[in-house]
Amino acid sequence: MTDYSPFFTPLGIAIVGASASPEKLGYGVARNLVNSSYSGAIHFVSHRAGNLFGRPVYPDLASVPNPVDLAVLIVPAPGMAAALRACAGRNIHAAIVMSSGFREAGAEGAALEAGIVEIARQHGIRLIGPNCIGLLDTHLPLDTTFLPPPMPPKGDVAFISQSGAICAAIIDWARGQGFGFSRLISLGNQADVNETDMLAAVVEDENTRVLTLYIESVADGRRFIEEASRVTRRKPVVALKVGRFEAGQKAAASHTGALAGSDTAYEAAFRKAGIFRAATSEEMFDWASALASCPLPAGRGIAVLTNAGGPGVIAADALETNGLHLAKLADSTRQRLAGLLPPAAGLNNPVDMLASASPEDYAACLRLLLDDAAVDGVLLILPPPPMHPAESVAEAVIPLIRASGKPVLVALMGEALIQEAAERFRRARVPEYRFPERAASALAVLAERAEFLSHVEVRRTTPTGSDSSEDQVRLTKPDQAVRCDAPSLVAAYGIPAAPTKLAQSASAAVQVAAELGFPLVMKIASPDILHKSDAGGVTLGLRSEQEIYLAYTEMMNRVTTAAPQARIEGVLLQRMVPDGQEVIVGMVRDPQFGPLMMFGSGGVEVEGLKDVAFALGPLDQAEASDMIRRTWAGRKLRGFRSLPPADEAAAADVLVKLSRLAFDHPEIAEIEINPLRVLSQGAVAVDVRLKS
Amino acid sequence: MTDYSPFFTPLGIAIVGASASPEKLGYGVARNLVNSSYSGAIHFVSHRAGNLFGRPVYPDLASVPNPVDLAVLIVPAPGMAAALRACAGRNIHAAIVMSSGFREAGAEGAALEAGIVEIARQHGIRLIGPNCIGLLDTHLPLDTTFLPPPMPPKGDVAFISQSGAICAAIIDWARGQGFGFSRLISLGNQADVNETDMLAAVVEDENTRVLTLYIESVADGRRFIEEASRVTRRKPVVALKVGRFEAGQKAAASHTGALAGSDTAYEAAFRKAGIFRAATSEEMFDWASALASCPLPAGRGIAVLTNAGGPGVIAADALETNGLHLAKLADSTRQRLAGLLPPAAGLNNPVDMLASASPEDYAACLRLLLDDAAVDGVLLILPPPPMHPAESVAEAVIPLIRASGKPVLVALMGEALIQEAAERFRRARVPEYRFPERAASALAVLAERAEFLSHVEVRRTTPTGSDSSEDQVRLTKPDQAVRCDAPSLVAAYGIPAAPTKLAQSASAAVQVAAELGFPLVMKIASPDILHKSDAGGVTLGLRSEQEIYLAYTEMMNRVTTAAPQARIEGVLLQRMVPDGQEVIVGMVRDPQFGPLMMFGSGGVEVEGLKDVAFALGPLDQAEASDMIRRTWAGRKLRGFRSLPPADEAAAADVLVKLSRLAFDHPEIAEIEINPLRVLSQGAVAVDVRLKS
Repeated sequence: MTDYSPFFTPLGIAIVGASASPEKLGYGVARNLVNSSYSGAIHFVSHRAGNLFGRPVYPDLASVPNPVDLAVLIVPAPGMAAALRACAGRNIHAAIVMSSGFREAGAEGAALEAGIVEIARQHGIRLIGPNCIGLLDTHLPLDTTFLPPPMPPKGDVAFISQSGAICAAIIDWARGQGFGFSRLISLGNQADVNETDMLAAVVEDENTRVLTLYIESVADGRRFIEEASRVTRRKPVVALKVGRFEAGQKAAASHTGALAGSDTAYEAAFRKAGIFRAATSEEMFDWASALASCPLPAGRGIAVLTNAGGPGVIAADALETNGLHLAKLADSTRQRLAGLLPPAAGLNNPVDMLASASPEDYAACLRLLLDDAAVDGVLLILPPPPMHPAESVAEAVIPLIRASGKPVLVALMGEALIQEAAERFRRARVPEYRFPERAASALAVLAERAEFLSHVEVRRTTPTGSDSSEDQVRLTKPDQAVRCDAPSLVAAYGIPAAPTKLAQSASAAVQVAAELGFPLVMKIASPDILHKSDAGGVTLGLRSEQEIYLAYTEMMNRVTTAAPQARIEGVLLQRMVPDGQEVIVGMVRDPQFGPLMMFGSGGVEVEGLKDVAFALGPLDQAEASDMIRRTWAGRKLRGFRSLPPADEAAAADVLVKLSRLAFDHPEIAEIEINPLRVLSQGAVAVDVRLKS
Repeated sequence: MTDYSPFFTPLGIAIVGASASPEKLGYGVARNLVNSSYSGAIHFVSHRAGNLFGRPVYPDLASVPNPVDLAVLIVPAPGMAAALRACAGRNIHAAIVMSSGFREAGAEGAALEAGIVEIARQHGIRLIGPNCIGLLDTHLPLDTTFLPPPMPPKGDVAFISQSGAICAAIIDWARGQGFGFSRLISLGNQADVNETDMLAAVVEDENTRVLTLYIESVADGRRFIEEASRVTRRKPVVALKVGRFEAGQKAAASHTGALAGSDTAYEAAFRKAGIFRAATSEEMFDWASALASCPLPAGRGIAVLTNAGGPGVIAADALETNGLHLAKLADSTRQRLAGLLPPAAGLNNPVDMLASASPEDYAACLRLLLDDAAVDGVLLILPPPPMHPAESVAEAVIPLIRASGKPVLVALMGEALIQEAAERFRRARVPEYRFPERAASALAVLAERAEFLSHVEVRRTTPTGSDSSEDQVRLTKPDQAVRCDAPSLVAAYGIPAAPTKLAQSASAAVQVAAELGFPLVMKIASPDILHKSDAGGVTLGLRSEQEIYLAYTEMMNRVTTAAPQARIEGVLLQRMVPDGQEVIVGMVRDPQFGPLMMFGSGGVEVEGLKDVAFALGPLDQAEASDMIRRTWAGRKLRGFRSLPPADEAAAADVLVKLSRLAFDHPEIAEIEINPLRVLSQGAVAVDVRLKS
């Protein structure tokens, strides 16, 4: 693993391209670095020698005194190669390339970018950028950006961004919100260092408790999942991934391919890696502040404490919407609340203390709720009580919240009248939100984090050696859709498939039937007939050699009448599979993340019903079961009305094995079992289709 | 229609219970009224005579000089009856009862509330409250609340709230956001005046352009829909309805009943009335400010103008998420943009001007986009350009935005650096949002409003006389689930039903068969057999009297073996219905809103698949078609793969007729046709179940 420490704890920084002209970036960077109280050495380099902020400006890197181990490079793109060579000459192995004019500017820029990457590799220099706004550490402190001062407040949330503009806007927004950061990193074009590198590096920062991520794409999907899985076991990660609706739907050969949108794989990757995916920027930071400062709840039962009915109802709704529920309070809690509150108060959860509630009432009721074993967390709602300032309530409850082992989130409703209270909550590191809905969403993420940590095992993110690798089947028809009935491929991975064989004459059919055993189903084999039964090309329940012979002759007559132009290759004979529930199991290979598995309601209507779930391979049994339960087809496997239960574990096993097959056979682009018939014991692949 | 003008344009106001003690509500109200610059007469009434804010305090209402036509009553609950009688004595017909201690405080308070309502009715007094925080009009101006000053800024959005606490918090929040209101009304217990009354009254206010509504329930569902439908044709209404997850699921006799949650009817009512339903308070006001000040778009094609890639991608995602799309720019527009912008700029929508964009660039590009016929609206993204203050961009674009007939919404990203720009946009009445996602959501509502106004016909909200009322069928078994096969009830409304008759012996079956005609299906008739086919109780394709006779005997043998305890009433004979697509059509009567209609995928898995749509009756053909297209079952009616198209119009017709039946028969609680078989021409009810 690379040592990124010169980026984060440099002994000395050289700003190459420092400038005395306030409209230049090189001025802003110099100003911020000087103002940031960075305690290491600061060196300015520029063609125009002289003084800047009371420090000497050196004509070149070579003239800079020691120590210097980080370079911030703000020179025109064509001069960047020389600047990097100068870094190598000074034994500098970390450079932040801020200048633009590279890949983002067209072909010429891309060539320049390739050039500087090559030089960096040659000399062992790691490079952030180009075309970025630098990085910032509020604790060291260190500020290599050119953004208008002051720095954002100190905090424990790190933000890694693939967009410089988002980074700048977030810094400014956070400042206004009093939201603190530990580190901010603008990745720019990611010619070298990318989001995955930074995740792995920043998790080591002791001042960072939560990592947040703005990404448009990842450089290497599998590596991202591996690193992120390691990171999320230590600290929570919240990501905002944009570019959900990329144009350019590829032509898919299977239902799985058609249903997997460009965003599905990212969704599955985040799930696999244990990353929380926020829908909006606001949500990302709402969640991050709760994750950074709250204890995790033991369950999903939440108490709502309010001084008014309306906000209590909003909170109750929002808890349900977010998959939490109102805790059922113990009788003893309710009795004690009754002793404290006026007769008209609401003692059921939400607890409505009424508008007369004093700061002392807030504190006393909160204590009772936190003491109730059924309560896993509290949503405290604070529209300023008519007779008391909101800050006095804040003062009364903060010590309880800080001392509690359960999370308490505050919905501090209003604006002007709650500023002082907001300030006190922030100082005490108690997350507060303007609306109950946002607090409820943050509480839900705390519950998810708790569940993630309690369930996490060391799940494999790449498959270990397959136990059936010696059985690998070579595919004979690459680059076209092949339909194999009950194929040996899935069978080689231990997925039971209905034995199927091709016969090209009536007498061959009789012979094949004798091999397979009865009862049998006969299907026409033709690349030109999509809907076999419509063309009279399916006969079920054949039980003797005589029936087979007859069925062959009749089928040929029917089909050649119904579809005279179709090429007929013969018939497929398949052992009849016992009754069971039919589902679809499929895999489509995502270019970034590899095998993306699907499970759901099969049949021809799969794309209409959209009752499917996706997950990234490799799957273990638990992940496969989780996918199954996310669909109606899967929940139905446990039995539904007159439908007897089917073997859910066998269906999960097929998913696990199919994912292993997908890893062993990178030449397969899509594979789909539709239907997989799930029996009372076991499951059988009735029809398998694949595309290489 | 009642005249509510004394509430909104009183000539003189008496505050009964005015107080000189700052901790009393009667002090706050007096202070606010005096400070509000209200131009009418202000009178104070209190037992303690004297002076208050330089005005005399009268000992009783009788002593107050004219004019006085509105009373604000702040006396203890037990004295309220007397206070109202005193109002009657002064010919005052409008009273705001602020005091609490009524219904919200228990049985005793409820009795007091009933008492004051009776007195008000006797004397023709309209009453807002009790237990409310009053009302406020920023334009008159008038402030009868006791909330801390100052009043919220003037604006054109009215807010009607069933929660006083929400009202207070919103006022404070709005003040901080610079968000203006026209009127605010706190409804309190709604002993008399309710949300529907106020919707109808406030739409008349010329200073109000948008109505917003916080509600927990409505007093009278049908009246609410009628009034709201009238209001939304004139001005947009945005509602936040809470209490989505009320406990107490009733026992349902049908799939329709089981699938209709307590919130489904509200969702359908808002859709029917043309009300926009916001998910959160923030969203409500985000939408309201756009609706109040923007022209409506002609379509859903939006251009994004940005100076950075990241926010552009976020905006593109958010547009898609909200059902809008990126407009395809004309070649000429792209050429002109190319002439203005640097070579690396993004000329496809989103248009990325790059960080160097000046205020002039913003204005010039915005003009080009607004001139493009494919562009129905613009989302302008403004992270402060590194080299220019955000307010200079605001100055440059505001005149264009104000002059444009197309909506332009601004995502002003950041906080500290954009305050001045935010201020200018607000003053110019250009809606601005901190995040592109919120701006996109507001743009979508503008598009919905435009579509609503263009499609709106004078739809009936209560049914006109049914053309089949003379055919009304009296139900014989009230209060229990009755299964009637192909019943005469739906047939009387012109819904074709497969003719079905009961036969209680083999020879009777033969006779019935002769009446019905062949082919027939025979089903066991037994209240104890739920799944008939499992018990051998269904035989299809009976084509002769002989087959009928035989089938009867065999069925009785099978069924009595399979279910020896079951009561057997005979067999039902039904004409076989041709092949078609099977759907479910149902109605459940909502206690508030009346007949709630359902359409979707039928069969036994209807509750698992949840492929259903709801709408409130009465339905016209267009509403029914809209419901159908919201489901996969409905979209499939147009044909899917080998499935031939079925008669969508006939299915819609069944919905329309079933809704009429439901209005004619208030004694029916639930009715369900499952399946309705939709044929290539027409549709036939195969099985009908109802509950009285």
